[in-house]
Amino acid sequence: MRNRQWLLARRPSGAIQDSDLNFVETDAPTPGPAEVLVRNLVLSCDPTQRGWMAMDTYLPAIKIGEVVRSFGAGRIVTSNNPDFAVGDIVAGLTGWQDYVAMNPKDQLNKLPPGAPLELAMSALGMNGVTAYFGLLDVGRPVAGETVVVSGAAGATGSVAGQIAKIKGCHVIGIAGGASKCRWLTDEAGFDAAIDYKSEDVQARLKELCPKGIDIFFDNVGGDILDAALAQLAMRGRVVLCGAIANYNATDWPPPGPKNYFELVVKRGRMEGFIVLDYMPRAAEATGALAGWVQAGKIKYRVDVQHGLENAPSTLRRLFEGRNEGKQLLRVAE
Amino acid sequence: MRNRQWLLARRPSGAIQDSDLNFVETDAPTPGPAEVLVRNLVLSCDPTQRGWMAMDTYLPAIKIGEVVRSFGAGRIVTSNNPDFAVGDIVAGLTGWQDYVAMNPKDQLNKLPPGAPLELAMSALGMNGVTAYFGLLDVGRPVAGETVVVSGAAGATGSVAGQIAKIKGCHVIGIAGGASKCRWLTDEAGFDAAIDYKSEDVQARLKELCPKGIDIFFDNVGGDILDAALAQLAMRGRVVLCGAIANYNATDWPPPGPKNYFELVVKRGRMEGFIVLDYMPRAAEATGALAGWVQAGKIKYRVDVQHGLENAPSTLRRLFEGRNEGKQLLRVAE
Repeated sequence: MRNRQWLLARRPSGAIQDSDLNFVETDAPTPGPAEVLVRNLVLSCDPTQRGWMAMDTYLPAIKIGEVVRSFGAGRIVTSNNPDFAVGDIVAGLTGWQDYVAMNPKDQLNKLPPGAPLELAMSALGMNGVTAYFGLLDVGRPVAGETVVVSGAAGATGSVAGQIAKIKGCHVIGIAGGASKCRWLTDEAGFDAAIDYKSEDVQARLKELCPKGIDIFFDNVGGDILDAALAQLAMRGRVVLCGAIANYNATDWPPPGPKNYFELVVKRGRMEGFIVLDYMPRAAEATGALAGWVQAGKIKYRVDVQHGLENAPSTLRRLFEGRNEGKQLLRVAE
Repeated sequence: MRNRQWLLARRPSGAIQDSDLNFVETDAPTPGPAEVLVRNLVLSCDPTQRGWMAMDTYLPAIKIGEVVRSFGAGRIVTSNNPDFAVGDIVAGLTGWQDYVAMNPKDQLNKLPPGAPLELAMSALGMNGVTAYFGLLDVGRPVAGETVVVSGAAGATGSVAGQIAKIKGCHVIGIAGGASKCRWLTDEAGFDAAIDYKSEDVQARLKELCPKGIDIFFDNVGGDILDAALAQLAMRGRVVLCGAIANYNATDWPPPGPKNYFELVVKRGRMEGFIVLDYMPRAAEATGALAGWVQAGKIKYRVDVQHGLENAPSTLRRLFEGRNEGKQLLRVAE
């Protein structure tokens, strides 16, 4: 079996270029003892992958010449591991390739048979778990509070906002473009949406959050983080989930939040987290999320592109704001 | 009785200029019902006063034409309040003036008779209480952790570092100049000191905190905050107490901490606080601090200038880093 792979050729500077990567073809690997061979079916596209390509972060940087790290879901086609059978559908860091051989222990999670992969890779996957713990554990919302989410139409932000609604908060989303904003208010139940492409975010936040922002769930950073800090409520919390506005910066690090001193004036807290730390408690999140999805309380959208050959351009869609909902890449049926 | 007063003439831009203020002389006020007349003895000089002059912060800005707001301690010379007697020594927001008439209820605290005012206005005053709650309540140190304090030779920083030592932490101070650094290690018991004027703070932090910074108690902001963020330990906390490096910025707000995203990578927390919120618990702090001072576990230094006419230049000493220890202004014996 032939195996196509995207290898990191050099660290990106600014937007990811095709020339930062090499698309190669080799033989599919042979799984060793206790390993399985996985046929990738769907790859998850996440802003954090840009960071993994560029530098050491909460995970070591992808090495030059290595397969691009990526979450993905696939089917086991060969198994040397008694706990995993051929045909099992599994998710984990399967990478930008058709086939991967790996020891599944602690590295791959079995997905329920017949579960729609789009759901398992978005609202019930890493994005849902990220939203759940980021909002509830770090943000600690109280009913009646005002919650603002940036990147609100994205895979994580949309779930974070909907959990805040479930918890009785007043929820405002910030997203790019009228279509995303309409989806937030008309489908996802947000109380209001701000289109950062056509509106003055700071003025709108002032208008929509007259008592200030109790929780800002930030996926974006940059000017939007500053606008939210300026409107922080007394004892407000900033949950740092991501900073997609910064990831493509060529001068690293890009400027920081100039309004950070509002944290003193408002006795605020700004706190980061990494979803990987919550893996031991993931079932708590996925259980709750599955119930809310089934009850229609959490809506989600996926934006599926096709073909492993399109992996770089599909990842770039996130940075161009072109994805509507969770960005996935289907690489096999 | 004549009363000299410093009135705010205009909001400062950059360093405080003499022309931002007017030095006037009027009759001392006559206290109204339930009021007392206080003769200021010692004024506290604090970086936050620059903020009060410039803009609304956690307190409304001083109005143009008003007496400059300042903590101070004085003697009651007239009393229309049964709870306060002539001769009582009191502390509160007495302002840059010889005499002030005010209702003492919730506004003035009686100091123990015979207590040295220098101690009451530094390690046992607002600075000590700030250090106590900032370090313990916001920072939450655990024995064995590494604590770094900026502005470490100042009135608040020096106490924060010494409390961290009392709690069993490894403590490094950042201060400006060899003399301040020597005092930190030789007198105040800090494990090490970094002279930001002659050393590369980031390189030295890396060297002195090989396991990272668990708590950064920040009085300074600017590049020093960025250097500390770069060396943050996993689950590190940044206690935002002040940002003296920024207060004189003419472009407001000045640049933010460009390394803020380390809060995500390290799952860190950056949190601000205002000591005024802790006033209901102040006795807890002053009780503990008094014990530590008496036991020789907390050393303090005061830098006393003289004469109300020198108030602006004395306040400026803080921004020039010229004060060695708590900056006070003695206005009467």
